[in-house]
Amino acid sequence: MGGDFAPRATVAGALLALGELDSTHSIQLVGRTDVITEQLDALLNDAGGEFSSLQAQRGRLEIVEAPDVIEMTDKPGSAIRSKPKSSMLVGLKLQADGNSDAFVSAGNTGAQMAASMVVLKLHNGLKRPAIATVFPTARKPVVVLDSGANVDCGAEELVQFAQLGVVYAEDLLGRQNPAVGLLSIGEEPEKGNAVVKEAHQLLQSAGLNFVGNVEGRDLPTGQCDRGPIDIVVCDGFVGNVVLKFYESIAPFIIGLLAKSGIDQKTMMDALKQLDYSEHGGAPLLGVNGVSIISHGKSSPRAIKNAVKVAVQAVDTKMDEHIGRRLGGAGEA
Amino acid sequence: MGGDFAPRATVAGALLALGELDSTHSIQLVGRTDVITEQLDALLNDAGGEFSSLQAQRGRLEIVEAPDVIEMTDKPGSAIRSKPKSSMLVGLKLQADGNSDAFVSAGNTGAQMAASMVVLKLHNGLKRPAIATVFPTARKPVVVLDSGANVDCGAEELVQFAQLGVVYAEDLLGRQNPAVGLLSIGEEPEKGNAVVKEAHQLLQSAGLNFVGNVEGRDLPTGQCDRGPIDIVVCDGFVGNVVLKFYESIAPFIIGLLAKSGIDQKTMMDALKQLDYSEHGGAPLLGVNGVSIISHGKSSPRAIKNAVKVAVQAVDTKMDEHIGRRLGGAGEA
Repeated sequence: MGGDFAPRATVAGALLALGELDSTHSIQLVGRTDVITEQLDALLNDAGGEFSSLQAQRGRLEIVEAPDVIEMTDKPGSAIRSKPKSSMLVGLKLQADGNSDAFVSAGNTGAQMAASMVVLKLHNGLKRPAIATVFPTARKPVVVLDSGANVDCGAEELVQFAQLGVVYAEDLLGRQNPAVGLLSIGEEPEKGNAVVKEAHQLLQSAGLNFVGNVEGRDLPTGQCDRGPIDIVVCDGFVGNVVLKFYESIAPFIIGLLAKSGIDQKTMMDALKQLDYSEHGGAPLLGVNGVSIISHGKSSPRAIKNAVKVAVQAVDTKMDEHIGRRLGGAGEA
Repeated sequence: MGGDFAPRATVAGALLALGELDSTHSIQLVGRTDVITEQLDALLNDAGGEFSSLQAQRGRLEIVEAPDVIEMTDKPGSAIRSKPKSSMLVGLKLQADGNSDAFVSAGNTGAQMAASMVVLKLHNGLKRPAIATVFPTARKPVVVLDSGANVDCGAEELVQFAQLGVVYAEDLLGRQNPAVGLLSIGEEPEKGNAVVKEAHQLLQSAGLNFVGNVEGRDLPTGQCDRGPIDIVVCDGFVGNVVLKFYESIAPFIIGLLAKSGIDQKTMMDALKQLDYSEHGGAPLLGVNGVSIISHGKSSPRAIKNAVKVAVQAVDTKMDEHIGRRLGGAGEA
């Protein structure tokens, strides 16, 4: 029920995902049954529409009733307490009870984080979960975390984000021995704020492929002077500022170039890899299970990609790998 | 003597600046007399070169001997103690002694900050100076500060940066009643890390045109939902990460577009406003006097623009306005 274009985009995205996933997968649509049914009917019965060909997927969809809706403007803490029958909480409980393998939402991010922590619980030893976002670069994409879950982080939390990022890069991006960079304002270990300087020291003995500090300029290139980067660790304040900056910069540059007569369509096509909907959702790493945060502005295509990220997380046993890595972080 | 292309770029930039500034201005070149003289001769006597036409400016240049050189790799604190006869310290002392009005350098930024604070001293009541950088946007440019001088800031320091930014925007960018935004991860006052949330409260009663929190996405657009932004306040860690990210993103996007056959030259021309050398140097705001930090990679053109920023700061009495504003911040 959540997201700027819900429930249409969510329902349509689920149909698209089923069209691409093999027959072993099914999707539970959690929310107001009447609204979802109406939406499904409208999409599938629109003879000329892009979803009418997905009629065969309807049997793989189950509707799970959840009468409450957490609005984008609701405060996370009070929303999850006062709306236990929201699609957010009902959907996550399906997973906690063993009736589903993963949860995807484009709703209120703060509420999804809070509800995921309450319902799924954190892995043992973990202080905070982190949102992992994939940044397109001139090389391969880079995992940036935390990109918004934690605004005030200690050094130990940054080290845990690195551990979480390694599992993400291995399982979802297929990287081997992924390179971890720590976002700072200079390459040297003594550059950075107090937390980053301490994290640098801790990361050197964390049993990871730690390549040292990376800078803002290394994010678009995907590499630093010491080689390619797979993971960039930062607190959620910096990560969120950079993420939103990144989302907004391509339209700005395209706008400048369009003034010189360069064809806008050609540019949009060339910059498709910068489109966030291509990368699907951002997992909330660290909870027991799979909780995928989709952009509030998710299109059906973005929802489809988020569902596919969820499936990949389940298939690769990302959650189990996180538990193992946090249990014996130094053994790698 | 400092900067990646010194002393050639510095000497050439000084000549270019004099060619554009009216005859009341002169420039002191501070460094090793023999090296500077040789460089000047080479530039002016190269009959086919772009600087040979500036022969007439030589009389407006004075060479001030400074035998020591602070290297880019030197540690700021020890460098300014052990190299009192460096071009950095000798140049700043000229100003402290009333023999010059402004100082420009493309050398070691940390050393320039430390030396500026030691030699020029901070304005009364100010806790830390801030580096103010101009970000190109889809609207008018926006002043971002601090962009690297302070990695760990308290809320009161952020408020002081706002005060400094207002004077910069008024005097150097000609803005009236400039709009101040606080960089955060959401519009609402309760969004942000602990320091930012406190700063938000303080800024509401600081006598400024405070428009509230702005987000990373508002930087390229130059405006938030409440209207245009003139100044963005943040700590130097976040500011530096975003600045370096910004410097590196345009080449990345141009690279992607070039692959689709869009002409690179056309793009470079269209994106000229993103070129940092167009904006000259970044003032270290808060010291008594004028200290302009140029990019280490400054070209002659960038040095020329930095000199022009320095002249503008002197002509508009920016320093005096800073003192007045800090003395009675609430009176605006």
